Amino acid sequence: MTGLDRIVENALLEDIHTGDITTLAVVPEPRAAHARLIAKEAMVLAGIDVAARVFHLLDNTVLFTPAFRDGDRLQPGDVLAGVDGNAAILLQGERVALNLLQRMCGVATLTSRYVTAVEGTKARVVDTRKTTPGLRMLDKYAVRVGGGINHRTGLYDGVLIKENHIAAAGGITEAIRRARAYIPHTMKIEIETESLAEVGEALAADADIIMLDNMDLATMAEAVRLIDGRALVEASGGVNLDTIRAIAGTGVDIISVGALTHSARAMDISMLLEGV
Amino acid sequence: MTGLDRIVENALLEDIHTGDITTLAVVPEPRAAHARLIAKEAMVLAGIDVAARVFHLLDNTVLFTPAFRDGDRLQPGDVLAGVDGNAAILLQGERVALNLLQRMCGVATLTSRYVTAVEGTKARVVDTRKTTPGLRMLDKYAVRVGGGINHRTGLYDGVLIKENHIAAAGGITEAIRRARAYIPHTMKIEIETESLAEVGEALAADADIIMLDNMDLATMAEAVRLIDGRALVEASGGVNLDTIRAIAGTGVDIISVGALTHSARAMDISMLLEGV
Amino acid sequence: MTGLDRIVENALLEDIHTGDITTLAVVPEPRAAHARLIAKEAMVLAGIDVAARVFHLLDNTVLFTPAFRDGDRLQPGDVLAGVDGNAAILLQGERVALNLLQRMCGVATLTSRYVTAVEGTKARVVDTRKTTPGLRMLDKYAVRVGGGINHRTGLYDGVLIKENHIAAAGGITEAIRRARAYIPHTMKIEIETESLAEVGEALAADADIIMLDNMDLATMAEAVRLIDGRALVEASGGVNLDTIRAIAGTGVDIISVGALTHSARAMDISMLLEGV
Amino acid sequence: MTGLDRIVENALLEDIHTGDITTLAVVPEPRAAHARLIAKEAMVLAGIDVAARVFHLLDNTVLFTPAFRDGDRLQPGDVLAGVDGNAAILLQGERVALNLLQRMCGVATLTSRYVTAVEGTKARVVDTRKTTPGLRMLDKYAVRVGGGINHRTGLYDGVLIKENHIAAAGGITEAIRRARAYIPHTMKIEIETESLAEVGEALAADADIIMLDNMDLATMAEAVRLIDGRALVEASGGVNLDTIRAIAGTGVDIISVGALTHSARAMDISMLLEGV
Amino acid sequence: MTGLDRIVENALLEDIHTGDITTLAVVPEPRAAHARLIAKEAMVLAGIDVAARVFHLLDNTVLFTPAFRDGDRLQPGDVLAGVDGNAAILLQGERVALNLLQRMCGVATLTSRYVTAVEGTKARVVDTRKTTPGLRMLDKYAVRVGGGINHRTGLYDGVLIKENHIAAAGGITEAIRRARAYIPHTMKIEIETESLAEVGEALAADADIIMLDNMDLATMAEAVRLIDGRALVEASGGVNLDTIRAIAGTGVDIISVGALTHSARAMDISMLLEGV
Amino acid sequence: MTGLDRIVENALLEDIHTGDITTLAVVPEPRAAHARLIAKEAMVLAGIDVAARVFHLLDNTVLFTPAFRDGDRLQPGDVLAGVDGNAAILLQGERVALNLLQRMCGVATLTSRYVTAVEGTKARVVDTRKTTPGLRMLDKYAVRVGGGINHRTGLYDGVLIKENHIAAAGGITEAIRRARAYIPHTMKIEIETESLAEVGEALAADADIIMLDNMDLATMAEAVRLIDGRALVEASGGVNLDTIRAIAGTGVDIISVGALTHSARAMDISMLLEGV
Repeated sequence: MTGLDRIVENALLEDIHTGDITTLAVVPEPRAAHARLIAKEAMVLAGIDVAARVFHLLDNTVLFTPAFRDGDRLQPGDVLAGVDGNAAILLQGERVALNLLQRMCGVATLTSRYVTAVEGTKARVVDTRKTTPGLRMLDKYAVRVGGGINHRTGLYDGVLIKENHIAAAGGITEAIRRARAYIPHTMKIEIETESLAEVGEALAADADIIMLDNMDLATMAEAVRLIDGRALVEASGGVNLDTIRAIAGTGVDIISVGALTHSARAMDISMLLEGV
Repeated sequence: MTGLDRIVENALLEDIHTGDITTLAVVPEPRAAHARLIAKEAMVLAGIDVAARVFHLLDNTVLFTPAFRDGDRLQPGDVLAGVDGNAAILLQGERVALNLLQRMCGVATLTSRYVTAVEGTKARVVDTRKTTPGLRMLDKYAVRVGGGINHRTGLYDGVLIKENHIAAAGGITEAIRRARAYIPHTMKIEIETESLAEVGEALAADADIIMLDNMDLATMAEAVRLIDGRALVEASGGVNLDTIRAIAGTGVDIISVGALTHSARAMDISMLLEGV
Repeated sequence: MTGLDRIVENALLEDIHTGDITTLAVVPEPRAAHARLIAKEAMVLAGIDVAARVFHLLDNTVLFTPAFRDGDRLQPGDVLAGVDGNAAILLQGERVALNLLQRMCGVATLTSRYVTAVEGTKARVVDTRKTTPGLRMLDKYAVRVGGGINHRTGLYDGVLIKENHIAAAGGITEAIRRARAYIPHTMKIEIETESLAEVGEALAADADIIMLDNMDLATMAEAVRLIDGRALVEASGGVNLDTIRAIAGTGVDIISVGALTHSARAMDISMLLEGV
Repeated sequence: MTGLDRIVENALLEDIHTGDITTLAVVPEPRAAHARLIAKEAMVLAGIDVAARVFHLLDNTVLFTPAFRDGDRLQPGDVLAGVDGNAAILLQGERVALNLLQRMCGVATLTSRYVTAVEGTKARVVDTRKTTPGLRMLDKYAVRVGGGINHRTGLYDGVLIKENHIAAAGGITEAIRRARAYIPHTMKIEIETESLAEVGEALAADADIIMLDNMDLATMAEAVRLIDGRALVEASGGVNLDTIRAIAGTGVDIISVGALTHSARAMDISMLLEGV
Repeated sequence: MTGLDRIVENALLEDIHTGDITTLAVVPEPRAAHARLIAKEAMVLAGIDVAARVFHLLDNTVLFTPAFRDGDRLQPGDVLAGVDGNAAILLQGERVALNLLQRMCGVATLTSRYVTAVEGTKARVVDTRKTTPGLRMLDKYAVRVGGGINHRTGLYDGVLIKENHIAAAGGITEAIRRARAYIPHTMKIEIETESLAEVGEALAADADIIMLDNMDLATMAEAVRLIDGRALVEASGGVNLDTIRAIAGTGVDIISVGALTHSARAMDISMLLEGV
Repeated sequence: MTGLDRIVENALLEDIHTGDITTLAVVPEPRAAHARLIAKEAMVLAGIDVAARVFHLLDNTVLFTPAFRDGDRLQPGDVLAGVDGNAAILLQGERVALNLLQRMCGVATLTSRYVTAVEGTKARVVDTRKTTPGLRMLDKYAVRVGGGINHRTGLYDGVLIKENHIAAAGGITEAIRRARAYIPHTMKIEIETESLAEVGEALAADADIIMLDNMDLATMAEAVRLIDGRALVEASGGVNLDTIRAIAGTGVDIISVGALTHSARAMDISMLLEGV
């Protein structure tokens, strides 16, 4: 995973910096130890390789033995992995490994709940750019593990024309024309609409994707009928676990959910160290 | 704030990378614009200077005018700040500024709820190392803004002797002796205990801080009586908004809460752009 | 331009490193000087802001006064810009500024020749990933200035299914199915084909873009007829200034040209320093 | 090669960034594969270790088996190297490896043509600072592989007193005196001259190297006679494959050629992947 | 040792940069060689792993065989370690390894002299922030190896309230109150005093550590009596090998010595290369 | 000074890291303050711009007013500079500014003593690569300020053929021949000799510089006579303030002194803060 090492090194430096003073003082000599990573609640596993990388970057002789794969559903008490190595290394890597793993499992687990909620509809659950600064790659990976699909990664790899762009360009038609003339032919053009009139104009201008922004269910359904398969339809705004099923029922293709990454709570995972 | 620029630059590069292709295509010419950052729910403000820094690192001619200070309590609809500058810059900084600000307000707001819950007791609410990898500095700052106190920043700036250290050293007394001989005289020694017997041994060995790890309320109260002011007492484990008041009632000095930073949800803040 | 400063700083450190020893030895005291950047042959200008940035990163009091804008066509003798500042700074920035500017003008100028060659057809000239390592952002920008269009920036922001992917997936249909299920809905799927049979299969599998790889003109023309507007058509391979017009004549939408960035020669530009 | 890893990592991040989305989507499981790097035209090989490093930095289990060494002359069809490893890794490294290798072979091949052109004379072909920003180390290495000699690497490791330095110092004599008093005793002093009078003054001031800048052949020959071995003589300006032989005929010691690095075209090399 | 690699890589790049031109020119082919690191004077060894790391970062096949451990006292002629590897690598690493090792041994040796000077007293010798910029981690480690104790690492991991802080806060009592309310409970509060009156006020305000700044011996002794074990006492200012014993005689707990790190001279160590 | 900012930023991060906790706690509000940098002993000033840069990188509104220039000789009590700004900034920059400045003045002052010691002879005092890792640029600058001359900066910008190179090449003649064929024509060739026989061979092979390594005075004088101006002569080894005058008396051109940078002690400079 490109860029992963930089994230992990950064997190380790943040926590260890000039040294784990407790261990340096109290356990100065190497001692072999064994640890187990244990799920304390039900969850979708995501990030097992990231946890392994934490220990390997500290000491490449650590033996990390995963018992599950990303995407597996864990029950409370499941042992995710065993870790064998010098006790000091295990103690130094523990917190960073857990901080990363617990967050990623949190995102994957929450995503899987949204995905389950729309099961049987054609709607796909996608993430947004509302990710943790510096960890977008991990957030987006965890969404995929949880069964979601990624929206564009950032401002650079997808076109999303918003109200302000439209206003600046002087209208939907002109905004789409400018985008078409400029962007790589490998990208689609998505445009935000707030009314059926705007949906109509976007369709006429050959938008590839039409975002229905904060529309009520009836308007959304009408928009889907109007578009009639000539563009992908994305619902956005006001999406939560209570509303998503009904939104999917309007026939939209895609539902984007900021909460997947901005408000997932950490899953409860602990590391048990033995043999010190 | 030392190191802030690296965090913000990293977040901007993550989002913008080779360029905001939508704006490059649709709004190629500079246009003056004005934006307002608006609270959509009640919260404690934290990170207003961080949001300002996002725009200034993109373009140091942006005018960022805060209307509140960190620590202020906001009501829904409050305008936190105005931002004046080139529309393209405002559009490019919006998401990163909000991602950082929403998270920091989330941490500060959650912290303030815990602090309120122990009001009138002598207990202080402190954070843990269960922070967002790469953003510990911001997490810890937001805890302070919310009225909490920071525990050690990482493994390098405080001593916390845990079960495994004790086992490796051959007992509490020896572990504390080793630490005292090694560490800067500016640091206190904290030790984790799981029983009253361990509390007694820690006291005898002159620990500065005794952590009561996952004890029930009665045992905690007994430990506090036993220690009787000869060491600081920290309660840890099983702390949430439902339990913290009773824990504070046992007379402990410090209550550490992982949830402050690992499970705060993002506060709802939006940016309204005008004049494009 | 996001990331530009890192490129320029890197180039300056590469050239100046511990210091311009000649100037330190021979001209130790500050002296005001004026320089002119002069085109020594006809070219399309690209990178004027990059050249300015070189001098500003060395000393932000340098006054850089451009006389032309990117995209302008220059004649031999045209003065692109004036530069006023300390002579030592001008001498230190000269080579890096020219190295960047001459290359960018080279790419823009070569691109404009390809664009001119297909004038009147519907074909668009696009670049490839055959760019200078470390300078892709500048190469791709210069292509746009020269009238070309960018293909995907890298492996991360566009899907291009090649022979090997197809073989590994077990066929065109399955490869496209897998891609569609995985990628952001904002991306199109492009697939490489080497025969009309493959073109047919790609069409049936709903590819968004069909690349005709190293086909002869007749086969290309036949492929265009077969596709009939149901997918974008990209011609690739064997494109040069002698062949591109005929390729465009087959009716393809897009022609990708590696030479734009891997074999453009530097344009002749010099800096004349006065008043030392 | 010190610093090589930074160049290669930078190039890989530029191309792969958040991931090779096509391969992640279409070929998610590891598959062993074999690839061959093949010369499509005659060339001097340069950079084979650089190509190897690209794959090794992606995955240090890749087996890279070179069949030739830098400096070898290749014929069309020659297989430079075999590469064995996970197909995804080979696909991800291909473009970066080729981009670097093709450029380096281009520089080495062009250099060897200049070197051949002066065969039998005492003139040595040297490069300039007109290199690709960020890749100077590779450019200069490729020049050596092609039989050329390096001029100074940058402004920091050699003294070259130009017109502007002379003007600022108040004359050739004073400029050389200042340099002699300041620089490490391990460096020679080179000075640019534009007339025989200046050559004479430089000689009198004990310059170690005298550059003849843009002189005609007759003047150059006269300058060589005048200098008569008391300083090294470098010819500069107006050098190309048509003129270099005659320039060498004047008896100069060194001929510097900017084109070696600023205008070499990429050699045609491709990677053939099998066994996917 | 966290962060060590960055220090070593930085030092290697500083010295080798674009390449060891002498070895590239004169010894282009690999040759096995053996080297010995030899102490040329008596010293306390510190940094043997740092020296090893220098060679391993250049080439991880080098065999570095230490004959002593950090903290050992060496006599002139002692061979610290053997190094086996490619001659070019040994030549390239020699200077950086020695520069680091000689400095660290210098700090450890000087520290041990101060520690010896106070033997039999209860005083502990501690370092300061007067370290070599960029090498604080190594300086502080060498102090520990020499038998000293570290003071805080930087401004971030310990509280030291100085005259200016006191003045700004409006007095010792208020300054300590503010610090107590703000800092992690794991940190002690140290305050600088310049008179017995200030010592009294600091005691009353419950300072954990009282620094006696530049006091004469009689005043120090009086301060120790006054404090009477209720706070740690640190002597600072005017400490050298002639004065430290008398200072320790006043009964202070801690004596901080800037000279340990700002004025230690390099120990004489050389590397003898054989078998080239 | 290229690269200076990286050194200063690194030093600031090392010291301040997550924040100056004392100042954050005790002096949270901005307060204007004035500080003076004062020499506490006689010294040669070096690094005044470096000290200024420390404060400017923390806060570019600080006003730094130097009263002396690098190279000036200071007397005890001289005020080097005034610094005006926010008290917190002055407190945070103080230690780093002094650490850098005190070291640089130490090197410059020690160098000036060696230079004075050879006054009236033709010998020039030069430094070595025995510098502080990471600070070579500052060390070498301070040597120049003290009146010394720099030897090569690192392994990359000068040729010094040592015993091991000679052995590997099979003799002095061959080693010099290889170097001459490889290196830039702007570099001289220096070779280490240990006997008059070697001096003779080096002369015959046209070495530019002959280093007399650890020779006694009589042999050195004989070598100088033998060389008779046909090469520069450098004395190396066993140089200190007691021996350098006699060494200079042998007629050598250059004397290299490791102690200039590896064993200079820090000069005593303090910062007095007022108006807090």
